[in-house]
Amino acid sequence: MNLRVVLVEPLYDGNVGSVARAMKNFGFSELVLVNPCKIEDFGLAMASHARDVLMMARSFTTIQEALAGADLVVGTTGKRLDEAQHHLRLHLRVPCLTSRELAKKLSGKEGTVALLLGREDCGLNSEELALCDMLVSIPTSSDYPVMNLSHSAAVLFYELAQAESECADGCNVEMASGETLALLREKSAQLLKETDYPPHKVDFTLLMLRRILGRAELTQREARTLLGLIKRMRWKIACREMRK
Amino acid sequence: MNLRVVLVEPLYDGNVGSVARAMKNFGFSELVLVNPCKIEDFGLAMASHARDVLMMARSFTTIQEALAGADLVVGTTGKRLDEAQHHLRLHLRVPCLTSRELAKKLSGKEGTVALLLGREDCGLNSEELALCDMLVSIPTSSDYPVMNLSHSAAVLFYELAQAESECADGCNVEMASGETLALLREKSAQLLKETDYPPHKVDFTLLMLRRILGRAELTQREARTLLGLIKRMRWKIACREMRK
Repeated sequence: MNLRVVLVEPLYDGNVGSVARAMKNFGFSELVLVNPCKIEDFGLAMASHARDVLMMARSFTTIQEALAGADLVVGTTGKRLDEAQHHLRLHLRVPCLTSRELAKKLSGKEGTVALLLGREDCGLNSEELALCDMLVSIPTSSDYPVMNLSHSAAVLFYELAQAESECADGCNVEMASGETLALLREKSAQLLKETDYPPHKVDFTLLMLRRILGRAELTQREARTLLGLIKRMRWKIACREMRK
Repeated sequence: MNLRVVLVEPLYDGNVGSVARAMKNFGFSELVLVNPCKIEDFGLAMASHARDVLMMARSFTTIQEALAGADLVVGTTGKRLDEAQHHLRLHLRVPCLTSRELAKKLSGKEGTVALLLGREDCGLNSEELALCDMLVSIPTSSDYPVMNLSHSAAVLFYELAQAESECADGCNVEMASGETLALLREKSAQLLKETDYPPHKVDFTLLMLRRILGRAELTQREARTLLGLIKRMRWKIACREMRK
């Protein structure tokens, strides 16, 4: 598994540097920044011997660019969830994985996983969360659930690195590519439309499907079988429409 | 278990504040400082809403005072261990556990555990290590094993808190019942049949679907939505059959 760490609009360069250091501590190196603060001396100092990670970080202005080529998108949420996020999560009933569950799920898998970490003050917003295939939350004390950005990053990197090393004797399976998953979403949307699905429910159901498929971590073969199934159903329905 | 966090001669108040914050994030509150740097505004800022932990921290000039009343003393070491420490460890036959092993060992135990964290630049010295009943080390990348003090603290607190309660108060969601899942499998099988799926592939595809849905750990609501989708597709296909 290749981990791409995506910091969305980080506010403090010290945190960006600290995240870079924690990445290198656990063997990760691909850092991507979306509209970051300016990285100055303090950020470099906090990166310490992980300056190389920081210097090689790519910056983008949109999250879509930052996610290009990722096979799976994982969003981090804390209990700092603002109302909008909270409603979204309740609305979608997205089971949120703990850091350990996520690590177990990803261990031994191939492909690029984008791990989204939000702003220090308000995390990821609803639109950003909607781009995620899975959500992860670190179990914290209800007395003070809000972790420092680089601390939560360090804990997540730690968990992912542990799981990777525990599963060293890899049972590696080819995971569905981001491209195949995108095709699967596109074809599902067409199928939904062709069943006269209530238009006001379409977006919600597609998002739910995306989450379910994301959590299921499809292999390439499974994704292809599902594509075949959808094709077959669409064909069956189309035959009927032609006869009308 | 009562955890006492002992910072030995910390050099930077930002780190002390960050450690206090991480403690509170994971439900710990007893902080003890041995010959600390002066805690100024930056330290307080880094503690954020864990100022109370920082304000209640006790300071001592000797490590012996800091350890008074502890039932077990655990020292943290990194791969930064210099030769002297390495020899000492071999010599003392102090078991060095990984963070996860330590958490498992301590989980469910009673008493006060003092967790010693050393200086940012050189950790704990040989005499300090000799006071420890156990050593703990976080598995890190050999490329850059030296973690930021508050990051390693956060990872250790996280592990200890996880072991204490594998599942804190989490995002509780009603998972799909076995009954609903059985219904989903039954309806999928019917749908497959109605799309004239090649009979010799049916069993294989149903098993694949079962695996995918199993891994996705559906919520009750998601399972119901999928049932609705299947019903709609079957209805669409049936309409066509009736017209034949």
